[in-house]
Amino acid sequence: MVKVAVIGGSGYTGGELLRLLAIHRDVEVTLVTSREYAGKPISLVHPNLKGFYNINFSDFSIDKIGNKADTVFLSLPHKVSMNYAPKLLEMGMQVIDLSADFRLKDPEVYKKWYGIEHPYPDLLKKSVYGMPELHYEELKNAKLIASPGCNATATILALAPIVSSNITDDNRFISDVKVSSSEGGAKPKEGSQHSERANAIRPYEATGHRHAAEAEQELSIIAGKQIKVSIVPHAVSSIRGALSSAHLWMSQSYSEMDIWKKVAEFYRGKKFIRIIRGNVHPYPDPKYVIGSNFADIGFAIEERLNRLTMFSAIDNLMKGAAGQAIQSFNISNKFEEEEGLKTPPLRPA
Amino acid sequence: MVKVAVIGGSGYTGGELLRLLAIHRDVEVTLVTSREYAGKPISLVHPNLKGFYNINFSDFSIDKIGNKADTVFLSLPHKVSMNYAPKLLEMGMQVIDLSADFRLKDPEVYKKWYGIEHPYPDLLKKSVYGMPELHYEELKNAKLIASPGCNATATILALAPIVSSNITDDNRFISDVKVSSSEGGAKPKEGSQHSERANAIRPYEATGHRHAAEAEQELSIIAGKQIKVSIVPHAVSSIRGALSSAHLWMSQSYSEMDIWKKVAEFYRGKKFIRIIRGNVHPYPDPKYVIGSNFADIGFAIEERLNRLTMFSAIDNLMKGAAGQAIQSFNISNKFEEEEGLKTPPLRPA
Amino acid sequence: MVKVAVIGGSGYTGGELLRLLAIHRDVEVTLVTSREYAGKPISLVHPNLKGFYNINFSDFSIDKIGNKADTVFLSLPHKVSMNYAPKLLEMGMQVIDLSADFRLKDPEVYKKWYGIEHPYPDLLKKSVYGMPELHYEELKNAKLIASPGCNATATILALAPIVSSNITDDNRFISDVKVSSSEGGAKPKEGSQHSERANAIRPYEATGHRHAAEAEQELSIIAGKQIKVSIVPHAVSSIRGALSSAHLWMSQSYSEMDIWKKVAEFYRGKKFIRIIRGNVHPYPDPKYVIGSNFADIGFAIEERLNRLTMFSAIDNLMKGAAGQAIQSFNISNKFEEEEGLKTPPLRPA
Amino acid sequence: MVKVAVIGGSGYTGGELLRLLAIHRDVEVTLVTSREYAGKPISLVHPNLKGFYNINFSDFSIDKIGNKADTVFLSLPHKVSMNYAPKLLEMGMQVIDLSADFRLKDPEVYKKWYGIEHPYPDLLKKSVYGMPELHYEELKNAKLIASPGCNATATILALAPIVSSNITDDNRFISDVKVSSSEGGAKPKEGSQHSERANAIRPYEATGHRHAAEAEQELSIIAGKQIKVSIVPHAVSSIRGALSSAHLWMSQSYSEMDIWKKVAEFYRGKKFIRIIRGNVHPYPDPKYVIGSNFADIGFAIEERLNRLTMFSAIDNLMKGAAGQAIQSFNISNKFEEEEGLKTPPLRPA
Repeated sequence: MVKVAVIGGSGYTGGELLRLLAIHRDVEVTLVTSREYAGKPISLVHPNLKGFYNINFSDFSIDKIGNKADTVFLSLPHKVSMNYAPKLLEMGMQVIDLSADFRLKDPEVYKKWYGIEHPYPDLLKKSVYGMPELHYEELKNAKLIASPGCNATATILALAPIVSSNITDDNRFISDVKVSSSEGGAKPKEGSQHSERANAIRPYEATGHRHAAEAEQELSIIAGKQIKVSIVPHAVSSIRGALSSAHLWMSQSYSEMDIWKKVAEFYRGKKFIRIIRGNVHPYPDPKYVIGSNFADIGFAIEERLNRLTMFSAIDNLMKGAAGQAIQSFNISNKFEEEEGLKTPPLRPA
Repeated sequence: MVKVAVIGGSGYTGGELLRLLAIHRDVEVTLVTSREYAGKPISLVHPNLKGFYNINFSDFSIDKIGNKADTVFLSLPHKVSMNYAPKLLEMGMQVIDLSADFRLKDPEVYKKWYGIEHPYPDLLKKSVYGMPELHYEELKNAKLIASPGCNATATILALAPIVSSNITDDNRFISDVKVSSSEGGAKPKEGSQHSERANAIRPYEATGHRHAAEAEQELSIIAGKQIKVSIVPHAVSSIRGALSSAHLWMSQSYSEMDIWKKVAEFYRGKKFIRIIRGNVHPYPDPKYVIGSNFADIGFAIEERLNRLTMFSAIDNLMKGAAGQAIQSFNISNKFEEEEGLKTPPLRPA
Repeated sequence: MVKVAVIGGSGYTGGELLRLLAIHRDVEVTLVTSREYAGKPISLVHPNLKGFYNINFSDFSIDKIGNKADTVFLSLPHKVSMNYAPKLLEMGMQVIDLSADFRLKDPEVYKKWYGIEHPYPDLLKKSVYGMPELHYEELKNAKLIASPGCNATATILALAPIVSSNITDDNRFISDVKVSSSEGGAKPKEGSQHSERANAIRPYEATGHRHAAEAEQELSIIAGKQIKVSIVPHAVSSIRGALSSAHLWMSQSYSEMDIWKKVAEFYRGKKFIRIIRGNVHPYPDPKYVIGSNFADIGFAIEERLNRLTMFSAIDNLMKGAAGQAIQSFNISNKFEEEEGLKTPPLRPA
Repeated sequence: MVKVAVIGGSGYTGGELLRLLAIHRDVEVTLVTSREYAGKPISLVHPNLKGFYNINFSDFSIDKIGNKADTVFLSLPHKVSMNYAPKLLEMGMQVIDLSADFRLKDPEVYKKWYGIEHPYPDLLKKSVYGMPELHYEELKNAKLIASPGCNATATILALAPIVSSNITDDNRFISDVKVSSSEGGAKPKEGSQHSERANAIRPYEATGHRHAAEAEQELSIIAGKQIKVSIVPHAVSSIRGALSSAHLWMSQSYSEMDIWKKVAEFYRGKKFIRIIRGNVHPYPDPKYVIGSNFADIGFAIEERLNRLTMFSAIDNLMKGAAGQAIQSFNISNKFEEEEGLKTPPLRPA
């Protein structure tokens, strides 16, 4: 049994980690922290988890973690995780960080997108980008895992099989992402209340979304050359799920079978990738991965224009956050890759 | 042209008043106040109204209202309206208050439900409860109108035709109300964000809802005896609309036709009451009154138990708030009763 | 390993059974039938299950089932199950029927509510009503289990602790139920499409809902006297979940603690009952049981009127259908009661 | 008073026409046809319209229309309208067709996208594409108006100001459209029921959407050269509203002010265009045009890539169908352009 601490357990990502860890057979959750709810029962914040945990939220103190945990999940805001990770690593613990703090390899790129000098550039080099479809080998025994962002995950998984080939010579990728309200987190904000958000179709951060930085980093590695991608997110009226529609133009005419082969080959053997085709459900829809760690990948070709759209559907809290973090955790700890992640998607939901 | 001021114009009720007043042909809106948004354009808060008003929000100052308005709509929180109404009335203006401050006739009842001594018990006597189906004659020339609460409106309109007869001798009325998220107002709160509120079916204030006070007052007048009613509201996953399912037991067997006649007689000639029966749409559904001032009234009898359920469906921001206030305003100013309220319900919505 | 067949596997209940059976460690699914989709892959109908089953839908033929199954789940329309159950039982299989065909003990009551003579009155006596909170002992080794209806489940679980005591002497119970769209099944119908159903608050079958028959049967057993209950369902704008608000008047003043004790005592040790109280989430909300087999039970007292409302929140496809069937299956087969049902509720969803 | 007939009055577009015509002061509706509902009251199909019409649906017979109507709105399926329009024109009536039958000027293009020879190529030349922002002058006195498709409307209005300039020299326009469930019409279909459609983010017709044909036609006229555009629609979980996110790359760096000027100039004086900018609501959202005829236009520039996204938000049943048809009707009949279309958007909705 690995002892696990969840630091920042009161948000949606923290709650989702707790939901998954509750049924993970190789794990004991020893510590769940929340500054705001210290001393309160976990089910006060996560009513779904009533009956699953008999510990309360603790206040966080790095010294007390000491012998409590083998692995620490950091489910904290950007620029907060970076204050804790170095010490925890030093103390010998594995750190799985769900913020953006350790995702970018290049400190210059980090500074450009996040506006500050990164205080631990060395750790950027040591961290592993926690996307098992790309970094399976590096994840084994990884001590610092930077779990990817949700819109980045959707975008990368849509485009990875394409940039790895010569299907396009155009460096103009638009990932038009449609995201659900749970991406905005558990705290109420202007514009996020039900009456304003239900029925909305609302672009945001449309002049440049930060997840483009990590998507470009990962896609460039695959392509072996600099890839540029625009991510344009839109808030739509769902609770869970994100769809990337990644549009591009092909350098010549390719058939559906050509593309299908590229995708199938790229993702061969990947446990949480499903390739979607057919007449009834021709394209991925995040509705059909809800509650699971799957990424459903599909595509459409408009022949008259050589336009290709790659689609990638994920549950933003699962493959887009907590589920992928558990998947990386499993690999790095030599557990079965699907442990804790076996429940099929919920339908209808 | 009547000059109109809307005090507290940044919430949903204020916004709905402005939406209706924008197409009211006998009205000029001269002043819209908001402490928070003073100096800002109205469309900043109400993006739907972009292009309809070329005045900005003002800060509120009772002295400056002076010659600006003939009628003042108070769209303020409970216990705030009561600070302004007396002075405005003294200055000769008509006051239409959408809060609960002047709805109850009896200062003792007010104190019981709202927890404080009412500072202006005389005004309680002078105010007219702004439900035209019950107080049409009193509304003519009314100077102080207390516009009813949404759940009270749904409950009263469901039960009024019943308590006016001898259909039941049981004083046990349950108004199980299902309400939409716009009832909660425009300010974000815990539990009201989309991710927590969508898909919810959530009872609240279930130990006694304040609107029972005004419902009991009005139903008792109609019945000629003391009526008691429980209102149990439930937040459901809609944006607009409220349904009261008012359950009761009949003192003997009555047929559908018996009940239909009572209802039809009670509401004969009322402009915004529609009686719903038939096979395709047998019962009222607030979905089909959205954006309109209609209350759709219907009922169901379970013969084996002599159980009767009266249904009343309203748009909570229209017949449940701003629409009914405009209707009372029209009557009191001798305008056409439907002026500003003619647009049919939106469907689908 | 128990071999299991799912007869009628293309609807929502069938799909939910398959979703749960996919992770049940004591089960092998050997046969899934569908007249309409025979020969087609299961994921064609249930895209969420892509990758979980490598058998196709079969056409149903009672003779071929023979050695294929130890237990047969019948997920068929009312009055269809009854044609298969007797033969399957005769062949030695366990039958778990999710229709209404074997729920009522009294053939007269069956005839009154379902309009036909029951062709197998003997089986009515032998079947066990599959609600483990009431019939745990009888379920052990049961050969024919009649799994309860969703609205009946919500109503019974809300009222059982009350009718077992002398809290009320009034035989007037109103179970005002709010139900989600998945209760209507997977087939499109007039009024069920998204544009008509989203935002709806729509009473249906309000003159007497059939689930009252089984609720009255079970509550009367508990009460030791004839109980009458009205069930009035309302379609609301959720996908999963049902809430019963069961209203009644108490014979005298009882405190919250009095009622809490009755409920806690009645449900002591029950694995899938959670009692809800507190300030943050004072009442049950089906949103927080989604994807799980829990029934969350709570209540509210309006002291001035001695009115008590019991609340019961379930996921209609889980505790209201497939989950409860699996729970009964586990008990009857001596498996762990929670096997296949351990995943915590999904939140937000 | 113009006498108006609505042919095909039972669908959503027909219902929306009737909703608008009910408050149009220059119109008398003399005939509403429906094959399926002939003889039935209009409110049977459109419960929102109860009380607004005292005529029933009629069966359609071209001979009986004779003296009944000056203008005929055809709200019929594609390839059905074309059977009626020629005769009605011959009889001297004005025809406003909401199908795709008369939108394309070039019979070859029609054949390519719709798969048949157009039987009335001459009428294609005579018809006016009913988008007042582009064809105001031609609409005056127009006898045959082809009202645009909803996704085409959103796409054209987003891109028109851009193709009229030299902002891009790339002929690669992607209009990624997010559409609401009311676009699918009032008839239930597989995949459109609430349980399957709520929470969905589902691409469809992604290999080439037919509305591209009319969008290319209109944009090419404006550009003075052949424009190609891909339209990729996605069904999202709203009831009303469509957003086009039209992505393109600029030929050089342009500032926000540059683009704003182009858009403002292009749409100067247009009654139903609103240009959206600012901090609080920086981009258009169809939520804020619901129930109105507005198209809200906005944009975002990603400077590092010279990527420009044009946004256009409409209510698909209003500016995308019935509202735009009424607007064209008003212009062609010399009525006030906004008659029947003055109600501000509903919010929240």
